[in-house]
Amino acid sequence: MAAAKSKSWKRQFDLYMYVTSAVMNKKGLAILMRTKMRPLSPTFASSKSKLNQMQTSQLEGDNVSSQDASLLPEREFSQVRESMHSAMSTNKTEIVDVALDEFSEGYFFLSPENRYKMLLSLAKEYDLNRTQVRELMKQHLDLQLPSDKAEDSGHEEEGSLSAFYRIERNLRQALKPMYEVLFERLNTHPGGLKFLSDIRADILCLLGDVNIASLRALDSHLKEKLITWLSPANLELHNITWDDPASLLEKIVAYEAVHPISNLIDLKRRLGIGRRCFGYFHPAIPGEPLIFIEVALMKDVAATIQEVLWDNPPISEHEASCAIFYSISSTQPGLSGINLGKFLIKRVVDVVKKDMPNICVFATLSPIPGYRQWMLSKLASSEMTGSAFKEILLRPDEEKALMDASGGSDLGSSGIEVMWNVLTSKNHEWTNSPNLVSALRTPMMRLCARYLMKEKKRGKALDSVANFHLQNGAMIGRLNWMADRSQKGLTQSAGIMVNYIYRLDNIEDSAQAYQNEGHIESSSDFRSYIEDDNGEKAD
Amino acid sequence: MAAAKSKSWKRQFDLYMYVTSAVMNKKGLAILMRTKMRPLSPTFASSKSKLNQMQTSQLEGDNVSSQDASLLPEREFSQVRESMHSAMSTNKTEIVDVALDEFSEGYFFLSPENRYKMLLSLAKEYDLNRTQVRELMKQHLDLQLPSDKAEDSGHEEEGSLSAFYRIERNLRQALKPMYEVLFERLNTHPGGLKFLSDIRADILCLLGDVNIASLRALDSHLKEKLITWLSPANLELHNITWDDPASLLEKIVAYEAVHPISNLIDLKRRLGIGRRCFGYFHPAIPGEPLIFIEVALMKDVAATIQEVLWDNPPISEHEASCAIFYSISSTQPGLSGINLGKFLIKRVVDVVKKDMPNICVFATLSPIPGYRQWMLSKLASSEMTGSAFKEILLRPDEEKALMDASGGSDLGSSGIEVMWNVLTSKNHEWTNSPNLVSALRTPMMRLCARYLMKEKKRGKALDSVANFHLQNGAMIGRLNWMADRSQKGLTQSAGIMVNYIYRLDNIEDSAQAYQNEGHIESSSDFRSYIEDDNGEKAD
Repeated sequence: MAAAKSKSWKRQFDLYMYVTSAVMNKKGLAILMRTKMRPLSPTFASSKSKLNQMQTSQLEGDNVSSQDASLLPEREFSQVRESMHSAMSTNKTEIVDVALDEFSEGYFFLSPENRYKMLLSLAKEYDLNRTQVRELMKQHLDLQLPSDKAEDSGHEEEGSLSAFYRIERNLRQALKPMYEVLFERLNTHPGGLKFLSDIRADILCLLGDVNIASLRALDSHLKEKLITWLSPANLELHNITWDDPASLLEKIVAYEAVHPISNLIDLKRRLGIGRRCFGYFHPAIPGEPLIFIEVALMKDVAATIQEVLWDNPPISEHEASCAIFYSISSTQPGLSGINLGKFLIKRVVDVVKKDMPNICVFATLSPIPGYRQWMLSKLASSEMTGSAFKEILLRPDEEKALMDASGGSDLGSSGIEVMWNVLTSKNHEWTNSPNLVSALRTPMMRLCARYLMKEKKRGKALDSVANFHLQNGAMIGRLNWMADRSQKGLTQSAGIMVNYIYRLDNIEDSAQAYQNEGHIESSSDFRSYIEDDNGEKAD
Repeated sequence: MAAAKSKSWKRQFDLYMYVTSAVMNKKGLAILMRTKMRPLSPTFASSKSKLNQMQTSQLEGDNVSSQDASLLPEREFSQVRESMHSAMSTNKTEIVDVALDEFSEGYFFLSPENRYKMLLSLAKEYDLNRTQVRELMKQHLDLQLPSDKAEDSGHEEEGSLSAFYRIERNLRQALKPMYEVLFERLNTHPGGLKFLSDIRADILCLLGDVNIASLRALDSHLKEKLITWLSPANLELHNITWDDPASLLEKIVAYEAVHPISNLIDLKRRLGIGRRCFGYFHPAIPGEPLIFIEVALMKDVAATIQEVLWDNPPISEHEASCAIFYSISSTQPGLSGINLGKFLIKRVVDVVKKDMPNICVFATLSPIPGYRQWMLSKLASSEMTGSAFKEILLRPDEEKALMDASGGSDLGSSGIEVMWNVLTSKNHEWTNSPNLVSALRTPMMRLCARYLMKEKKRGKALDSVANFHLQNGAMIGRLNWMADRSQKGLTQSAGIMVNYIYRLDNIEDSAQAYQNEGHIESSSDFRSYIEDDNGEKAD
């Protein structure tokens, strides 16, 4: 009965996978050349959505699994839990294989509440045996430490060392929580590595809501394992081209997180002449990069995303002297905190340098995702009357220029108010007023430099993209005004973008200085904004 | 100066690698079609030879490095040691990379004595900090274990668990010997994984001669790391064919350990119709399988190596119903004790079954490498007068047949003596006497069955090849008389070979029964020898 049930799950699961993965095939690609592309259905990317949203998104997604998920009775929880248990505690490979299949398939059909229960049970009940750990500790403490002086004193020394090594080996073993067995077995099981990444995505979602020590320990163990298994030595760099299978290109479309791919002509251009797309693949997760980066080969460091994505035509490659990394996307939320991007950039730089010795500048064209939000909080606290620590945001000349530019509109009675209204305008109407655009430029660029350079969180840049490139060893190069006029770009950073520069001789030193002292390197061009900013403060 | 020196090393090292790897190229292959092939020079495979043979074999091998090795002054030791130290203790990637290069290149130029010193220094001086470990143990023991009853008792519980998790995490960290950092860094360094395997080969050689606890601990840590890094998920199965690069085929010739490849026609046949060769590759060790297996597709389970390697012609593949694994060779002595073969066989069975559904029997044709040696010791102790526990080796009818067959020769005055002389004859002259061959058959086959089935070491089959296949889940199928008449086959097992059968439904059960109880499964055909043998004892 249980086997029959599991078979029927398997069938439905396969059907589900078929339905979602058949969303686009090669024929479909040709048809879609004329239509606008959408990312994969929310259900497919369900592991990306918050646990508590999952039920909803599964119901929204119109396919087989959503029905199952809502119909699954509570009883199934114990079945999935049982398969999890035997996957860890049995030693017969055949049984383990079946249990791993049943667990990883069953897990996806659990309700968010039951997933939560399952993960908590894993964290708490499959932890380590502390009594045994303490027994070994006592044995260790009972031994006499060999004195450092008596080196090579012969057999007695060797004998006592033997005892240390034996207890320490046992202790290492005892300090391994039982759930590590599950992780290790999943890692060598087909589809298991991907499943582990999905599980971790769920754990991270939970930890966003609740702070449970055992769950945090579960996460840190899983993360450590994933770091080992996803070491660069195990990853393969692949130059993704238009000749790759549609099933792979579909993933690129779905996972592109920085500049969404709007149609297939857009995609084809990103894989065509003067462009590169490199992905990092793991043999156990075929047909899907863990992370990928898009590169434009250009004459100069790009100042707008427009010229990278849309302006025609790309220059011929032998004229290019700059490689611009204009998008880097992780596909697995469960690999959060595992910096694959650093190694990817390193490998890509090597490959590009080898292929095209004429390329001598490696830089990004990056969004500044946290800038607008930070500005809003600054403006809000600046507006608060009576705040003793009110920051001076606008210089008098900036204030005046803003008021002049907004004259006659109802944008506000102070520069701060104008900026607030501009940044919160729904359709970014300000971009249609050359006067406003011009008046905003000076304060917005100056404050953006302050945001990138001075705003820290635990000693690191507050902006997540800045932190990513700085920890990889880049320096801040140039701020670009009106560089991304898309809805997203205007919403994130009022259209400002930044170039981070990877100077090949300095990457390691910069990374170290940032890591150890939080030191941020920047170009003189960029520093002039900061000097401006400091000048204001000294007033 | 040091840099210049290191550069000069690098040059000589590269030259050395060039000289050895240039032994054969494609042009060379064509020429060699007419000549007899030899394995690569001993120096190339120096990591396979015992440490104390290394100096000699390096001097024998007529190439660049041997001169260097003997000319290198003692001073260099401290240089290599220093690079080893900075490879572990620095955090600047660039310095680490240079140090890793210098260490791994320098290490190979050390004399055996200095390698020994280096490994011992690594094992002893880069061990763990026991004082710190004990401090953490005391902290742990000072904490009150939470009572099992008070589940979910709230914040207090969580707080105390947090403390446990924190100390345990620190303790795990403190229990990691410092040399693990070196291993981990080498693993992600180009060429490092191969170097680690070479280092382990040296450690294993040393441990064959001396029993030092810290060296054993070093080995067990390194082995554990290698097991993780070489997990099947990280290995790629490749069907090696005549279309593969000569540099790869050269490795197959060099590493074939069971039935040496005598010339290129032999090699071509092994890669041709009715034959397969599969290798397991790691991305970090390109162009060289870690282990490979040779398969013959046949109508029946092969009874002699002659029909596999030489009899003409191979049948067409669609007529085949048996896949015969007739050779499996590990290429890395440093991976000893890491059973890659088990997974390789599993994968190969899957691939062959999928490709050719008509194949329904999977069996080996295997040597019995320990049989003759075991027989000699049995014969010797049987000859010893006055031994109280003298085993009865020959039955009266066997004794008579042997004496009749040897009549007139000077082979001895008893069956035991005849057997001794037969087994120690230098040129195996007995194989030219049909009478002797016939008279030897019954006792030799019966005792061989006893050897395979009954002779155990720590509960496992004494014969290494038997132990390998039994632990993988095979059963003993059939003994084959006069199955390998080569010098090697006659010397190892008087020409007897055995088929181990992989019955796909039973592999796991058999492996478990062997693992847990030392139970050896065998065919009724094979068991009849054992019943014969027992019958004799009951006399």
